Amino acid sequence: MIKTEALQVELIQVEQIIEARWVVPVDPKNSLYEFYAVVMNHQLIVDVLPTLQARMKYQANEVVVLDDHVLIPGLINAHTHAAMTVMRGIADDQPLMVWLNEHIWPAERAIVTERYVEDASLLACAEMLAGGTTCFNDMYFYPQATATAATKAGIRAHLGLTVLEFPTNYAVDADDYLLKGFEAHDSWRGNNLISSMLAPHAPYTISNQTFEKVLTYAEQLGLGIHTHLHETRDEISQSEVTYGVRPIQRLATLGMLGPGFVAAHGVHLLPHEIDMLAEYGSHIAHCPASNLKLGSGIAPIDALLKNHVNVCIGTDGAASNNRLDMFSEMRLAALLSKGVSEDASVLPAYDALKMATINAANAIGLDTKIGSIDIGKQADLVAVKLSDFSISPCYDPVSHLVYSCGREHVTHTWVAGALRYSNGTYANIEPVELKEIIQTWQPKLRQYKH
Amino acid sequence: MIKTEALQVELIQVEQIIEARWVVPVDPKNSLYEFYAVVMNHQLIVDVLPTLQARMKYQANEVVVLDDHVLIPGLINAHTHAAMTVMRGIADDQPLMVWLNEHIWPAERAIVTERYVEDASLLACAEMLAGGTTCFNDMYFYPQATATAATKAGIRAHLGLTVLEFPTNYAVDADDYLLKGFEAHDSWRGNNLISSMLAPHAPYTISNQTFEKVLTYAEQLGLGIHTHLHETRDEISQSEVTYGVRPIQRLATLGMLGPGFVAAHGVHLLPHEIDMLAEYGSHIAHCPASNLKLGSGIAPIDALLKNHVNVCIGTDGAASNNRLDMFSEMRLAALLSKGVSEDASVLPAYDALKMATINAANAIGLDTKIGSIDIGKQADLVAVKLSDFSISPCYDPVSHLVYSCGREHVTHTWVAGALRYSNGTYANIEPVELKEIIQTWQPKLRQYKH
Repeated sequence: MIKTEALQVELIQVEQIIEARWVVPVDPKNSLYEFYAVVMNHQLIVDVLPTLQARMKYQANEVVVLDDHVLIPGLINAHTHAAMTVMRGIADDQPLMVWLNEHIWPAERAIVTERYVEDASLLACAEMLAGGTTCFNDMYFYPQATATAATKAGIRAHLGLTVLEFPTNYAVDADDYLLKGFEAHDSWRGNNLISSMLAPHAPYTISNQTFEKVLTYAEQLGLGIHTHLHETRDEISQSEVTYGVRPIQRLATLGMLGPGFVAAHGVHLLPHEIDMLAEYGSHIAHCPASNLKLGSGIAPIDALLKNHVNVCIGTDGAASNNRLDMFSEMRLAALLSKGVSEDASVLPAYDALKMATINAANAIGLDTKIGSIDIGKQADLVAVKLSDFSISPCYDPVSHLVYSCGREHVTHTWVAGALRYSNGTYANIEPVELKEIIQTWQPKLRQYKH
Repeated sequence: MIKTEALQVELIQVEQIIEARWVVPVDPKNSLYEFYAVVMNHQLIVDVLPTLQARMKYQANEVVVLDDHVLIPGLINAHTHAAMTVMRGIADDQPLMVWLNEHIWPAERAIVTERYVEDASLLACAEMLAGGTTCFNDMYFYPQATATAATKAGIRAHLGLTVLEFPTNYAVDADDYLLKGFEAHDSWRGNNLISSMLAPHAPYTISNQTFEKVLTYAEQLGLGIHTHLHETRDEISQSEVTYGVRPIQRLATLGMLGPGFVAAHGVHLLPHEIDMLAEYGSHIAHCPASNLKLGSGIAPIDALLKNHVNVCIGTDGAASNNRLDMFSEMRLAALLSKGVSEDASVLPAYDALKMATINAANAIGLDTKIGSIDIGKQADLVAVKLSDFSISPCYDPVSHLVYSCGREHVTHTWVAGALRYSNGTYANIEPVELKEIIQTWQPKLRQYKH
């Protein structure tokens, strides 16, 4: 009798293994793995290896087999206002300043309370989880209420400590906004899912003095800065009249630009401004759908990428998109860059996927924690089923993710190793809760509809 | 006792009534009806009236109640190549001429047979029905095979009698293409679902002599003409070298332009060429996703609309899109026009819906039969559910159709009064058939992948 014990290797016990037909780790080599497994333990990715090897090395409490699926890093929405979901479609076909001054701001003044923000953010979290988004970079009033909703839903949130000059229900002046932001920030210590950034709204709503305060706090607390920048031509002309320079130059002079600076939109940028962003190592959160829908224009993404500016993708809020859908945003970003530059090879599929994952993690300073499927990172993962007839056949899963799939093909969304959404069902959100949120807030908002 | 018999009205017996929360008929007044019913009998729409009135007037064999839905005319895909579904994603990130010369045409030479076209067209019909498309304007080899697939699926097809100069499996020269087209055309007489148009491929593949023949036949048979036009700058430069004029001028001189002329793409058009299209009453089939994806550019839709050129929307083939999805195409058309013109009020939602319905019916000469929900027209209808959380709340169903919904919200698709698709199931197509089609053809095509 041959002794077999010597060959027996003890299997390592882990919590969960996902065996997928394909895994796209999102790495610098543009890897695509076939018949691969991702091993998860204590919220983390602990191994990424061929499925056959995984079976010989690990024993899991739970194995999820995804025969027709591609597993990708959770998508990161790099610029949104989650709590605007209930304003979805209240002012379509209006330019930014009319949209903002005549519809959105009056509605916000009347409606926005801590309760509103928590409710509307929960609806947004549900929409994002179902569409494969596992983290969002937010800017809105009452960030602590958005944190409550995100924590409940089990989605990761990078929350803006929003600053404005004008009084709202939330705060009376810039100092009060900052104070409330820091209170919220302090309360999130030790929360694995919640992190934050300072979020002065925009150069056209923030004074030099307030920007300087924001900068001081950002340096003291080691926080990044998230703002709207060069979204419209009007905003730039206004700045030239008021400050004698374009907004980006004003911010540069104030010392705001740097590797922790995330500018949402960046639609209108001159070549030397693109150089400036590259030199400072600042980031652009590209919002293609919102920029088109509000008539703001088309950001020069091809030029930004050629100049090595880090570009990520955001949906903006549901009032100007009207979907918090990173799949349609990836597709639009890729198609738009090809069309505008009249070059089909610009922004290929893998690069669009990077913009929706690792580039966003870089921008918000979470790249050691999320943004790719890598050992030691948080297990923020999304499974996308590629076998539906409406997207068949599939020759290349990465091309499919960007050009053929929609968010409706997402079947599983894990955040920090926990399954938060699967095939129409949420781990922690009941349909009746979402229904109640809509029934509570929609009637109050209807009067502000265009 | 009061006599009640005198008040009794005999109910009119009909086949089917759809009671919908909303009905968008697509009419010149941009109507939107709430709590309305559409009454169908013998393939036709026989009444459109408030649900409460419908219940007092009609008795139906079947009543479909759609509490959360909007009912719209079936979408019409104004330019596609249905049989290219199996080539979905085989040559991404490539410019048109490389895509065509190095990938698509070699694959077609090797693979395309009558059997291939029937199989691949059936997959396309399944995709289109599930996405709310009830009619498609096609251009491909073996149109009789596409007709077979369309008839089986129960979708309406307006099929190009395709003409090329070069030999393929299908035909040896232009005369042979024409001959085969007319044989197919004759075989469709009396088929309510199939109609046709002459389809000379493009000015860069068709000689003057052949265009003249096409024109003669079009006049004799009362058929329209469908061709590719001004899709790329290259095609225009080539024409200037070969013919001394731009393609549209060459076609005008040949007498091809007129109210029966549908030009796919029209990306690069000078102001006087837009005037020319308007004067002749010709039509543009706008293919925004394909034009972006191949790097062809962005069509001047705002200028075309301002000059009263009839613009409709097409997906193009699945090899250059990669979805046969009229919802994403409507959204892209609307967003793109706003962004390019930097005016959010350009191409509002109702107009985008017209481009995907009645404008397309006009272009292909079927406007008395389809394209709107109107008494006497064919009952080509689509129900879209607006209550999913990811698209809630809904303030305006028309805005929602264009800016928030995806094709995944389509629940029912009727063609000529028959329910052809409902909640994932086809009336006449089995999943196993589609699976076999993919398993048969994908391995043969894989070698032509980029």
